[in-house]
Amino acid sequence: MTDSWLHKLNWGDEGLLPAIAQDAATGEILMVAWMNREALQQTAESHEAVYWSRSRKRLWHKGEESGHVQKVLEIRTDCDEDVILLKVEQTGGIACHTGRRSCFFQKLNDQQWQVVEPVLKDPHEIYKK
Amino acid sequence: MTDSWLHKLNWGDEGLLPAIAQDAATGEILMVAWMNREALQQTAESHEAVYWSRSRKRLWHKGEESGHVQKVLEIRTDCDEDVILLKVEQTGGIACHTGRRSCFFQKLNDQQWQVVEPVLKDPHEIYKK
Repeated sequence: MTDSWLHKLNWGDEGLLPAIAQDAATGEILMVAWMNREALQQTAESHEAVYWSRSRKRLWHKGEESGHVQKVLEIRTDCDEDVILLKVEQTGGIACHTGRRSCFFQKLNDQQWQVVEPVLKDPHEIYKK
Repeated sequence: MTDSWLHKLNWGDEGLLPAIAQDAATGEILMVAWMNREALQQTAESHEAVYWSRSRKRLWHKGEESGHVQKVLEIRTDCDEDVILLKVEQTGGIACHTGRRSCFFQKLNDQQWQVVEPVLKDPHEIYKK
C-alpha cells in the first residue's frame, strides 16, 4: 500500500491532527491548523499545504482566496505520530488572515497579551472579491 | 482579575490547548504537548514548562523525571487564541523521551517515515530510577 505512511499516524477519534507550518528558511512558526487524512495526502502529492477547516467543515487549500499559498518542502511527524510539521515557503510572506507574517503575534507580557507583530497588508486588500 | 489573560484563550470543550515548545535560540521545534489552564498558569509563574499529560491525566512538569526542564523565555498565542507557543531553553539539549533533541525526527521521504535525527542519549540512561 502506497498510503501506509498515512495510516501509520494516530489520527484519533475525530480523524484530525494539528499541523504546524514553519518557515523553512527562518524557522519562524507561521500558523497551526488541522489536517485529516485527505488533507495530508493532498499536501504530500501537491507540495502545497491543504488543511481541514473545522469551522467550514471542508478541505482548505491554504491561499485559495488570498493567494498566500504555502509551498511544502518537508513533512515531519513526532515521536507519538500525532502532530504534523510542515516546513514551508510562504507565498507573499503573509500566513495570517490578519495580514501579519505569523499567526503568533500575541505575546504574554505582564499578564496581558500584547500584539508584537505588524500588519503587513490590510486584510480587506487580501480578501477582496 | 490578574488571570483574565488566561481566560481570554479559547480552551474548548475539553479545556485543553496544544502547546508548541520551540528552541528560543535556533527556532527548532522541540515538541508539542497539551496544556490546561492550570498548566499554563504554572508555566507563566514558574518560567518552566508544565503540561497536561493526557495519558496520565495529571500535570506534568517537563523534566521532572529526566531533568530535561524547559526554561520558558516567552509565551505567545495565535490569532484564534487556541494554540500556545513557548520559546524555551532546553536543559540537556534533549526534549524527546527517545533521547533525541526534538520529537520531530521522522521525515516523509518517498512515502515512508524516515528517522533523520540521532539519539543523543540512551533513554535508559535518561529515565533510570
